[in-house]
Amino acid sequence: MTTPVRVGQVGLGSWGRNLLRNFDEAARLAWICDTNEEALRSQASRYPTARATAALEDLLADEQLDALVVATPVATHYELARLALEAGKHVFVEKPPAMRAAEMEELLELARERERVLMPGHLLLYHPGVRKLKELIDSGELGEVLCVYGNRQNLGVIRSHENALWSLGVHDLSVILWLIDEEPVEAVAHGRDFLQPGVEDVVFCFLRFPSGKVAHMHLSWLDPHKMRKMTVVGKEKMAVFDDMELERKITVYDKAPWEPAETYGEWRTRTGDIFSPKIPNDEPLRLEVQHFLDLVRSGPGDHAEAVYGLHVVRALERLTESLRAGAPA
Amino acid sequence: MTTPVRVGQVGLGSWGRNLLRNFDEAARLAWICDTNEEALRSQASRYPTARATAALEDLLADEQLDALVVATPVATHYELARLALEAGKHVFVEKPPAMRAAEMEELLELARERERVLMPGHLLLYHPGVRKLKELIDSGELGEVLCVYGNRQNLGVIRSHENALWSLGVHDLSVILWLIDEEPVEAVAHGRDFLQPGVEDVVFCFLRFPSGKVAHMHLSWLDPHKMRKMTVVGKEKMAVFDDMELERKITVYDKAPWEPAETYGEWRTRTGDIFSPKIPNDEPLRLEVQHFLDLVRSGPGDHAEAVYGLHVVRALERLTESLRAGAPA
Amino acid sequence: MTTPVRVGQVGLGSWGRNLLRNFDEAARLAWICDTNEEALRSQASRYPTARATAALEDLLADEQLDALVVATPVATHYELARLALEAGKHVFVEKPPAMRAAEMEELLELARERERVLMPGHLLLYHPGVRKLKELIDSGELGEVLCVYGNRQNLGVIRSHENALWSLGVHDLSVILWLIDEEPVEAVAHGRDFLQPGVEDVVFCFLRFPSGKVAHMHLSWLDPHKMRKMTVVGKEKMAVFDDMELERKITVYDKAPWEPAETYGEWRTRTGDIFSPKIPNDEPLRLEVQHFLDLVRSGPGDHAEAVYGLHVVRALERLTESLRAGAPA
Amino acid sequence: MTTPVRVGQVGLGSWGRNLLRNFDEAARLAWICDTNEEALRSQASRYPTARATAALEDLLADEQLDALVVATPVATHYELARLALEAGKHVFVEKPPAMRAAEMEELLELARERERVLMPGHLLLYHPGVRKLKELIDSGELGEVLCVYGNRQNLGVIRSHENALWSLGVHDLSVILWLIDEEPVEAVAHGRDFLQPGVEDVVFCFLRFPSGKVAHMHLSWLDPHKMRKMTVVGKEKMAVFDDMELERKITVYDKAPWEPAETYGEWRTRTGDIFSPKIPNDEPLRLEVQHFLDLVRSGPGDHAEAVYGLHVVRALERLTESLRAGAPA
Repeated sequence: MTTPVRVGQVGLGSWGRNLLRNFDEAARLAWICDTNEEALRSQASRYPTARATAALEDLLADEQLDALVVATPVATHYELARLALEAGKHVFVEKPPAMRAAEMEELLELARERERVLMPGHLLLYHPGVRKLKELIDSGELGEVLCVYGNRQNLGVIRSHENALWSLGVHDLSVILWLIDEEPVEAVAHGRDFLQPGVEDVVFCFLRFPSGKVAHMHLSWLDPHKMRKMTVVGKEKMAVFDDMELERKITVYDKAPWEPAETYGEWRTRTGDIFSPKIPNDEPLRLEVQHFLDLVRSGPGDHAEAVYGLHVVRALERLTESLRAGAPA
Repeated sequence: MTTPVRVGQVGLGSWGRNLLRNFDEAARLAWICDTNEEALRSQASRYPTARATAALEDLLADEQLDALVVATPVATHYELARLALEAGKHVFVEKPPAMRAAEMEELLELARERERVLMPGHLLLYHPGVRKLKELIDSGELGEVLCVYGNRQNLGVIRSHENALWSLGVHDLSVILWLIDEEPVEAVAHGRDFLQPGVEDVVFCFLRFPSGKVAHMHLSWLDPHKMRKMTVVGKEKMAVFDDMELERKITVYDKAPWEPAETYGEWRTRTGDIFSPKIPNDEPLRLEVQHFLDLVRSGPGDHAEAVYGLHVVRALERLTESLRAGAPA
Repeated sequence: MTTPVRVGQVGLGSWGRNLLRNFDEAARLAWICDTNEEALRSQASRYPTARATAALEDLLADEQLDALVVATPVATHYELARLALEAGKHVFVEKPPAMRAAEMEELLELARERERVLMPGHLLLYHPGVRKLKELIDSGELGEVLCVYGNRQNLGVIRSHENALWSLGVHDLSVILWLIDEEPVEAVAHGRDFLQPGVEDVVFCFLRFPSGKVAHMHLSWLDPHKMRKMTVVGKEKMAVFDDMELERKITVYDKAPWEPAETYGEWRTRTGDIFSPKIPNDEPLRLEVQHFLDLVRSGPGDHAEAVYGLHVVRALERLTESLRAGAPA
Repeated sequence: MTTPVRVGQVGLGSWGRNLLRNFDEAARLAWICDTNEEALRSQASRYPTARATAALEDLLADEQLDALVVATPVATHYELARLALEAGKHVFVEKPPAMRAAEMEELLELARERERVLMPGHLLLYHPGVRKLKELIDSGELGEVLCVYGNRQNLGVIRSHENALWSLGVHDLSVILWLIDEEPVEAVAHGRDFLQPGVEDVVFCFLRFPSGKVAHMHLSWLDPHKMRKMTVVGKEKMAVFDDMELERKITVYDKAPWEPAETYGEWRTRTGDIFSPKIPNDEPLRLEVQHFLDLVRSGPGDHAEAVYGLHVVRALERLTESLRAGAPA
């Protein structure tokens, strides 16, 4: 039997409580920490065996503590993750782990030096539907991937600090970069801040990759359509992950362009079966937490999760620069 | 009773035949013209009272002829429209009427000098659903328009000369420019030519207008989704024109961002009724042809149709330059 | 300020726990009762201020107790409701309150004698969507109602005792009888017991009412379509309540048959706008519990809820007889 | 090379013109016949090589004529088919070929005596989607068929003579009987004549078959939903033919009830993949006409088409009796 991993969590807000519940089930929840007294007291009564504190130092100083979960406001992620790594803790940090690529590079460097796990919480990568998309691509069933695009639209939560790129796009970007498995050579964003100056409500992003693949994101919280969708156009088949569907999370269309031998140079199209494979009902958050705990036990290996998190921050940074450059002064 | 307008048509291909049928019903079809002998013979037997010829000069020389309909391949539009205007004919020319803004400016100039009608065939503007969108905007029902975007996607006809921007985008662009009624200050396009070098299959376009409104087009003939959709995000309501729907061509969502007085600076959202007004079943092509004939009878007025056609060509030219600039050498 | 109603609940199963939560919020939960020790203990720890017992007598003997909530297995509803009324308690009893019309008549008689509230838990009648349907009918907006039909289909929970008529149909039947507000003169059912002898998996019911209106129910737990839908065909408009929709729970179609004056005796059709009014998000269960507590405070009045519950049981009994008569011996 | 079949057609109405066009393409159209002068003249100019007459005798007397196509009003089908068979002609007769089972039996008897083809025009049986349903059943892929049901609803053409059973139900009934391949032991119909006395606008039919299978039809031309759908519930899988879908005419759901060995007697459910096989685009009418011409050339064989047509008329007759019996006097 394995000894349970001892985990402390800083940040007990609404998403933080989901993490708490999962870490409490899968590991030993040793500490909870928040500067908000009300939040701390309320969770302390829920998890009476965990020690509660407003001082992060208490957690960092606990030599028995294996790992720190960071679920605080975005602007503090980098700082807290750095402190935890310096204290020799494994770190699970909510996305995005940093707001600048240089910061994320520093964290990665630190994780390597200390041989600690650094895992950003890119939840969608643990969604069985997204994993099925990846599998369809990797197995070659879709043929060469040409284009991937995401639609994350809704009349939804309007943030006053993070724009639609950082609040919505981080989800789709993590999926796109994972599916394509390259870093973009071109990353352009366009958008508009309708409601609050400097906070874009609608953002369109275009990415071009070394292999020639392209990707696009349509992000908006001012939209009549509720969409959470990722489409992959392959040269042999096309696949769609639609998180608004109950039964057809994934649909594979046997549709493709087609160049008949007898008409060299002229392209036609081919349409065949449509298929929605059964996707397991597993909760992505449970799978994500489990993966982190497995890494803590097995060691960080090649730091793939952190490297990959760096790619996401780098792309976000470049898209943000493009967005700012495009905006009228 | 009005004397019927005497019309001659050059170009008898598949779309041309739809125009023929409509002009034959609503006007007097005096001439048909095509250099393809087979096409000419076949339509001559269908419209025995029209004179058939392979020589455009025959039409231009006929002083009784009021108007020329140009339905030939795109590359010839400008030249034929010019000859017709120079010969003093009114001109209906399929879209796009020219491939360069300078050419279209020349045509417009000529139409003004000769006081002749020059009308590009932007069919969608005569679609009752699109007219309803325009009406919803102009009446103020949607509130200030923030963003308009079009989706024209499908696994559809793959052209070997025109790219997706020119073959698909010309439709949505004509609608967007008409709805917003401004010329863009920024026009950027990104895309990729997957199947044939230099012919983009997938194109994304972003437009920014002087008033701050933005627009976007997602154009692709390599796509699993069949979409022909235009969405208007207003500050009070949102509206969608979906040409794939049978009964709900137009849907108005009483959804909007909302800034409660008591929480200054913090935006919430509001969701209300959803409404699909009945749209007349009128055939757009019939309405378009009728509008041209009305203009021929009443005179070109302020040349609004031609001016507007110039805006479309100008935007296409700018988007094409952007697309070329973005493409790797 | 009103004194809180003192409520005791018998039956602490999964649905019972939803009732518990709501009665605990809106009233004073004085007693909880179940013969299942495990269930009793678990809820006792959740509601420490309520007294817990396995003996219903304890509740019946408590003179301070105003009302009893019955959420036990169906076969016991009648017996428990009778005991509670005899003990002078108001009664909320889950649907169906009895399995025979004679039993329900007896309960109603008792409620009248003792002047106590007897309210069967027909939850759907408190659904804002169903209330909107009723309002559309009562306001005359749909015109004369011709036909109402329900679809309750799914590959869903397969019961081993209750058939699809009793387990699914009781919902739709309560809505149909409420909307039409008549008792049927004809009630016919057809179906088949595919999986377990005597327990019909698929049932079709036809009802004819004194006014000439008709109704139909398609009930099945062996079905590829997940449907929870009620359609009302009026002579002026048609309306649909679709509980699987997120945003369009109610849709009103301005569609109708139409008899032009000039073509006497020949019917045409008319199609107009489609409209989905915004429906409040209120939780039906909360509204239902509130209605019961209001009745307890104000008195049973004309016993409309119980009379109406009797109509449902009577129709179920007649449909069951028809189903049995139609089945091959 | 085969000699073309020589065909004559009586009845040149709107549906008749579709038959004309197809028989003209696939056979030699020798005669056209209608008592309506206008219709006769108009089609005569369209098919100048066919002889035109108002007298059926002309066709019956032509010894060179192989086959007669009957596309006249329903009430005349039986009489015209009988005359044609007596004259030794093969007969294609629109559905229903007769309005009473006794008449259809007589026609079948005659076809057997004269060794002539008698084929009723049950068009849906030649629809590639319906053929796919049949194939899914016959191959055993769906497992034992339990229930088949059809929905044919719309706000559609309101007939003044034929009710919804005869005008809409004849389509679904032909499919149901073909798929199940048994004659029903029970056939019950319920409905209502809202608009015109004696002409039911809404009809529900229930059928029970010797094997225990059941079927249902929901037929209405007063309905907000446009549905043309047939659902087959098998014990292993379920399949749907939906003629309103563009791309998913057929969908197979790998869903089923499931009895785990460890819980004998208790049924659960199983949900798996969803699959829409590609269906050929072949026009059903062309396939139907071709099948008739093949039979004319090869001989009537076991008269399967006619026998099967008799089953449809028999079921319609029984359902009509049930409908009349159920209607209040």
